[in-house]
Amino acid sequence: MKKRRLRIIPLGGLGEIGKNMMVLEYDNDIIIIDSGLMFPKEDMLGIDMVIPDISYLETNRSKVRGIVITHGHEDHIGALPYVLSRLQVPVYASKLTHGLIQVKLKEYKTLKGTRLEVVAPGEEIKLGKFRVEFFSVCHSIPDAMGLIIHSPIGILIHSGDFKIDHTPVDGKSIDLTGLARWGAQGVLALFSDSTYAELPGYTPSEKVVGEALDRIVNNAPGRIIVATFASLISRIQQVIDIAIKYDRRIFVSGLSMIDNIHIASELGYLNIPAGILINFDELKKLPNNKIVIMCTGTQGEPTSALVRIANGEHHQIHIIPGDTVVMSSTPIPGNESVVYATINQLYHRGARMFYGHLESVHVHGHASQEELKLLLNLIKPKFFIPVHGEYRHLILHSQLAQSIGIPAGNIFVMEDGNMLELTQQSGKITGKVPANNILVDGLSVGSIGQVVLKDRKALSRDGIVVVIIPISRQDGKLASNVDMVSRGFGEESEIREFIQEGKELVARTFVSVNGHAHDRNEITNKIKTTLGQYFYERTKRRPTIMPVLIDI
Amino acid sequence: MKKRRLRIIPLGGLGEIGKNMMVLEYDNDIIIIDSGLMFPKEDMLGIDMVIPDISYLETNRSKVRGIVITHGHEDHIGALPYVLSRLQVPVYASKLTHGLIQVKLKEYKTLKGTRLEVVAPGEEIKLGKFRVEFFSVCHSIPDAMGLIIHSPIGILIHSGDFKIDHTPVDGKSIDLTGLARWGAQGVLALFSDSTYAELPGYTPSEKVVGEALDRIVNNAPGRIIVATFASLISRIQQVIDIAIKYDRRIFVSGLSMIDNIHIASELGYLNIPAGILINFDELKKLPNNKIVIMCTGTQGEPTSALVRIANGEHHQIHIIPGDTVVMSSTPIPGNESVVYATINQLYHRGARMFYGHLESVHVHGHASQEELKLLLNLIKPKFFIPVHGEYRHLILHSQLAQSIGIPAGNIFVMEDGNMLELTQQSGKITGKVPANNILVDGLSVGSIGQVVLKDRKALSRDGIVVVIIPISRQDGKLASNVDMVSRGFGEESEIREFIQEGKELVARTFVSVNGHAHDRNEITNKIKTTLGQYFYERTKRRPTIMPVLIDI
Repeated sequence: MKKRRLRIIPLGGLGEIGKNMMVLEYDNDIIIIDSGLMFPKEDMLGIDMVIPDISYLETNRSKVRGIVITHGHEDHIGALPYVLSRLQVPVYASKLTHGLIQVKLKEYKTLKGTRLEVVAPGEEIKLGKFRVEFFSVCHSIPDAMGLIIHSPIGILIHSGDFKIDHTPVDGKSIDLTGLARWGAQGVLALFSDSTYAELPGYTPSEKVVGEALDRIVNNAPGRIIVATFASLISRIQQVIDIAIKYDRRIFVSGLSMIDNIHIASELGYLNIPAGILINFDELKKLPNNKIVIMCTGTQGEPTSALVRIANGEHHQIHIIPGDTVVMSSTPIPGNESVVYATINQLYHRGARMFYGHLESVHVHGHASQEELKLLLNLIKPKFFIPVHGEYRHLILHSQLAQSIGIPAGNIFVMEDGNMLELTQQSGKITGKVPANNILVDGLSVGSIGQVVLKDRKALSRDGIVVVIIPISRQDGKLASNVDMVSRGFGEESEIREFIQEGKELVARTFVSVNGHAHDRNEITNKIKTTLGQYFYERTKRRPTIMPVLIDI
Repeated sequence: MKKRRLRIIPLGGLGEIGKNMMVLEYDNDIIIIDSGLMFPKEDMLGIDMVIPDISYLETNRSKVRGIVITHGHEDHIGALPYVLSRLQVPVYASKLTHGLIQVKLKEYKTLKGTRLEVVAPGEEIKLGKFRVEFFSVCHSIPDAMGLIIHSPIGILIHSGDFKIDHTPVDGKSIDLTGLARWGAQGVLALFSDSTYAELPGYTPSEKVVGEALDRIVNNAPGRIIVATFASLISRIQQVIDIAIKYDRRIFVSGLSMIDNIHIASELGYLNIPAGILINFDELKKLPNNKIVIMCTGTQGEPTSALVRIANGEHHQIHIIPGDTVVMSSTPIPGNESVVYATINQLYHRGARMFYGHLESVHVHGHASQEELKLLLNLIKPKFFIPVHGEYRHLILHSQLAQSIGIPAGNIFVMEDGNMLELTQQSGKITGKVPANNILVDGLSVGSIGQVVLKDRKALSRDGIVVVIIPISRQDGKLASNVDMVSRGFGEESEIREFIQEGKELVARTFVSVNGHAHDRNEITNKIKTTLGQYFYERTKRRPTIMPVLIDI
């Protein structure tokens, strides 16, 4: 009995959005679904990225049979360089995803020695006691897949990130019939994408964007500048198709977009007739109403093409009257202010603007409530585990599952690190494994913790004052004047007086405690408190105060 | 001719949202509309608030006749303590606004000596050559007003912040008939609120929220916890009315909400029957389905009642099964992540949740496109100046004005500091006055500039390393060991080795340049570069490096 138990352990992506990673374990076999990164949150100052905690996998490394990847977005592949440097296991991905992973591993110099396998929808692989079959899903990147996992206790279906698009641009719809057939046979558990479980109704088809873009291009008096995500290949294809329709040529600006177009077209995911893409010299010779410029910068990234255009700092493109700019995107939460600053700047330079609030120039890539219910109803799983979302998304998705008739007791709202043990009859969360956020800061992986983040927060608010107190080795008294330097506390002219008075205050404080104090900690604490109070009274600010006692 | 010219100078609120302040000048008379603050943007690290630059007004202080206030929100009254400490002029506001200003000035100790006058819709005041008449508008705070300004060259109408609510909770609708009558007589210029010029259609009535709240309370099995803005008096009234309807009592938590309820009910803006508000002892005796708890915390403010409840840190209220929490608000841009963290926490504690994505539990207070066009069409101004908004909102509002027939040449899209000179025939932007963001940081007003903000930014990313180099006064050589302390650079165990090696590197560098260097700047620069390179190679981080040479 003990052995007929499947362990399900999310290491990332449940409870917080990003760094998706799910572990399935049966007996002596573990398979991993995705290895993503999370972009740092606002309070993670100076952090480059966040990756999942894989200590459970390192402890059980002999069991790990492989990593299956659902699609090529950073929150599903971004942690691979780190994971593969610690676990030498094969990685299975679709063709485009494989291409993107290769580029990433090359960049991190972890490609050598890694077994990267290409799989296609319909194919099946064997990983220990698991068999994994892949099926196409629609998402905001081509070649996204869901998984049918044949485990010893039954079939598990994982949706990956998906939406149900009946008119996808690449023609690859989700295989609803196939899923329904599995549903009829009996599916033990479904893992389904909860990212947009808050949104009622259906997510519009990518085709809607094409119609809006067509209207915009048709009515544009001059050049069109379209900014979108570099990985949104279907969007890029739509822009290409519309450019052809209106006899325009396309100039691409921005390294990541050029790279992605290159990979995608090489692997057959973009159809670009010869002569459509032009270089800058060709651009200069064309009339404005024959030009489309495609670029990145929809998130207000300071070095992106669009932001440089908006700020008048692009070396090739300058806004001219009659230019139409389309932001084919939505701001990722947290980027709103820089995105709108870019829009404001582009208006300033005289561009006609189309962005999310004004036209259907973007649709997102996740299923809304009706699609989620449809998937649940087609598959009719015995157990349901909502994945990919903050806690509220998981709860809302579990409510949707209940609304279509899955008993509350068969739904498991899990969070990262929870261990669910599932049999054919029932499931129970039986434990917890480490699933902390591992912070990457420069070369350090996991060594930055709360102390440094708290220090950075304090420094960012009121700066720092360093007090240097030279102490004579001979008599333990002040050997010379107290020195004081500051950064981020105030403009020099403003604080000069406080710094001068502060030095005198520190000297007096030192003299008054020196000799009585038990140890140097007591001296530095006294100086911190006294000086801190003085600065607060004079400025209502609380700089970090750092006394340094040096022996001379 | 020269004299028949009206000057219009926005000092805040045009081009950026917040710190609203508009100057009208004719001959020797200046009137000011509003004196608001702006909450600091993300890149203004450690800044408390931003206020308008009033140096133009200080230069022309003898001309200033008074400040008229449209309503009591911070972005319209928040800068008054600063402005009034520099300009001793009377302030005119409606009753509730007046009450809120009094509280604010008392807090800043600028109440004494300030002439604060109460005015009511329909009243008229004379300020130099201007006469100002007030009219009611609907907004997300009661007692909001628009202005009819009789200037020597014609009538100007200023909308204040407004929406058109035909079924307002306080019964005070905008006086469309009156405005239409002025329109028929001829209005020279309209200044109208652009904040929501991006939104198509009409903004829903406050009544919609009441209907949703009624449904929620009617179906709630246990206690109701409603969180909203403390100044949203009409929302508070709706909660009170619904509580009465369902025979529930109300417990209020949160100082600012208690204060606002107190002021508003004292001034007659809230109707609270005796016995409805209860204290904590009474609360404890009531069954759960007889209880409503009203509190603040809709923006995820760490010390607010709702956030403390969500974190299990509230001294009185703990979530119990059956509790229903209503977030009657939307996250202000930038607060999304903390707001959603609060919602996730409340779900965790087992609350049933209602918030913006799920129910119509909030409507905003600004006019959408159809309302903006209606106002333009009723007033039919000769000239139009969109106010209150980022540049894109102003542009979109100007496009709406063109769509209803106002010639583009009669529309002035201005930004803070622009000076528009208007005659009865035409207008022209003729100059620019100072309109910088004045940063308030603790007691300092305006002295924090880009240098400090840049330093704080750098500190927040990679921390700081301070290098102390003791130099002998006798021979100019190293007098003792180099010392090095850091903050926010890395966890101690991680960087210990780099700090140790760094000290040796600095000592070697000092010895190598000492004697050859022209001056100490050259020495410190060399140390900064060398040490910076070393740290970057070892950690891929760039801490701020601060060498301090001290003479011993």
